[in-house]
Amino acid sequence: MPCSCTKLKAILETRSKSVSSPFSLTILGAGGALPVPGRFPSAQYLQINQQGFLIDAGEGVQMQLLQLGISHHRIRHIFISHLHGDHYLGLMGLLFSMHLSARKQELHIYSHSGLDEIILLHLRHAKSVLGFPIHFHHLSPGTHECILDHDELTVSTIPLNHRIACSGFLFKEKSGPYRINKEVLPEEMLLQHIVQLKSGKDVVNENGEILFDVATYTLPPHKCRSYAYCSDTAPHDQLADIIKNCDLVYHEATFLTADSQRAKETFHSTAEQAATLAKQATINRLLIGHISARYKDAEKLLEEARVVFPNTFLAEEGKSYTVGG
Amino acid sequence: MPCSCTKLKAILETRSKSVSSPFSLTILGAGGALPVPGRFPSAQYLQINQQGFLIDAGEGVQMQLLQLGISHHRIRHIFISHLHGDHYLGLMGLLFSMHLSARKQELHIYSHSGLDEIILLHLRHAKSVLGFPIHFHHLSPGTHECILDHDELTVSTIPLNHRIACSGFLFKEKSGPYRINKEVLPEEMLLQHIVQLKSGKDVVNENGEILFDVATYTLPPHKCRSYAYCSDTAPHDQLADIIKNCDLVYHEATFLTADSQRAKETFHSTAEQAATLAKQATINRLLIGHISARYKDAEKLLEEARVVFPNTFLAEEGKSYTVGG
Repeated sequence: MPCSCTKLKAILETRSKSVSSPFSLTILGAGGALPVPGRFPSAQYLQINQQGFLIDAGEGVQMQLLQLGISHHRIRHIFISHLHGDHYLGLMGLLFSMHLSARKQELHIYSHSGLDEIILLHLRHAKSVLGFPIHFHHLSPGTHECILDHDELTVSTIPLNHRIACSGFLFKEKSGPYRINKEVLPEEMLLQHIVQLKSGKDVVNENGEILFDVATYTLPPHKCRSYAYCSDTAPHDQLADIIKNCDLVYHEATFLTADSQRAKETFHSTAEQAATLAKQATINRLLIGHISARYKDAEKLLEEARVVFPNTFLAEEGKSYTVGG
Repeated sequence: MPCSCTKLKAILETRSKSVSSPFSLTILGAGGALPVPGRFPSAQYLQINQQGFLIDAGEGVQMQLLQLGISHHRIRHIFISHLHGDHYLGLMGLLFSMHLSARKQELHIYSHSGLDEIILLHLRHAKSVLGFPIHFHHLSPGTHECILDHDELTVSTIPLNHRIACSGFLFKEKSGPYRINKEVLPEEMLLQHIVQLKSGKDVVNENGEILFDVATYTLPPHKCRSYAYCSDTAPHDQLADIIKNCDLVYHEATFLTADSQRAKETFHSTAEQAATLAKQATINRLLIGHISARYKDAEKLLEEARVVFPNTFLAEEGKSYTVGG
């Protein structure tokens, strides 16, 4: 069915919004294993277009979501890096609250094995059955593999080097569609032609003649944006390759260089080591967190990181960071 | 060994402080099952002399302790009323923090069965062994019995009427020692005579003659103070007798009277029911909490309670309440 050029332009306006749509990270908690006043343990909310992803769920995560006005109804996928308390003890409370808020939508939880056993035990003793289905996805320790292949993005594990099985997560937009060049849109173009061009293929008629070619009528897809979460870990050889050229990376920086022996013993990183990785991987921007409670002044860790990688920032609770663009 | 009268008076000054020593309740959280901004789930800190007791441990309890400057090193006994998440999900984080803070002192946990299994499962998956011993004490559902007989107080369970096994806790000072009347202290009185008189017995010589009699040299012991914690519960026949004449009672008041059907279905109480119990039991002061998240204005619940029992107050997070005296 032919479609007027004005109508087509309106459709394209709407679609282009989804191409340059939000990709942002909100820090819910960036403290270390021991909480200090005003620092919650690890938890992050990642929004990609209309999808909400929760990364780690330290104690208090549901209060932080409430405080920041982020509805937990938006979350369909929860990624837990490892089973140390400061990374997941807020999950059970969040699940109970989802249940009490009459959630029906399924929830996917990605974690190393054990978390399902813990959740089921809590439910058994509470004599509760959640009103929504949970799909558990077990992570394989030490691997870098795709665990979620979504319309708009993929999520892959990042092998980390910690005392127990621990994985980071790499969120990567898929190559977006070719963008129709609205400046050269002809009256005779139909909606199905647009779909064909956006897939990167020329539009040909039944005789094989090219009606509209990709080179003339489209612009190249937007650059794919990417975010990597790396906590908790000692330095790991494979990391630089996996997070290569990422727009934004969160990396733990538990210790100052002066305490690097302690970092080694506890399978954590110094701020300087996090920054060295960022430099090697030529990423765009580095956020550091998981600062040990022993340091009253986190700025010192930032200073050590910036000597190596100037585009480093402290992950601030309640603050949102745009990924790419 | 004889002891000068001045020295004895100094000793008695010190001892008398401990008789009128603090007995206070600090509210760490008094929210309902669903958190709302600024309301933490159930948790209370009770201080009796130098002893700290934790009653319930909702999510965020360790942050609340930190925020209020209460060291968790003071806590030796933790009482968990029941295994619904809003009453104990902060416990595991607190235990990990105690461990990371190099605690060595033993800890006693009183709970219905299941909590030990949950704690051990968390520890197993974290591959952690706590650096201090925990003694689990299982509560018997539906009973009113002494579970801790301490030098200065007893703690007894209060049978509550909830969807799963649930107990409240009654903290009662023991009858204190007779108080030496310093106004009539003779020079020839020895330290061992003081000890004898404080136990309520006359001091006699080897011939059976009374040297110092209790009636002349002592004042009666201070009134014993008491605090009762009752959450979560529907009204229960035995309650009024058990908390009879308590100085301070915390009772859940999840619903307004208009929602009493919902209260019944969920085994909770209305503010009016809590106040009716307070009146029947002729207690001194009532604190209400565990207000449902559906009520934006908790004052309405307070109003309904005060119609029945005027000396009712809303349990305010961060606020301390003196018990008795």
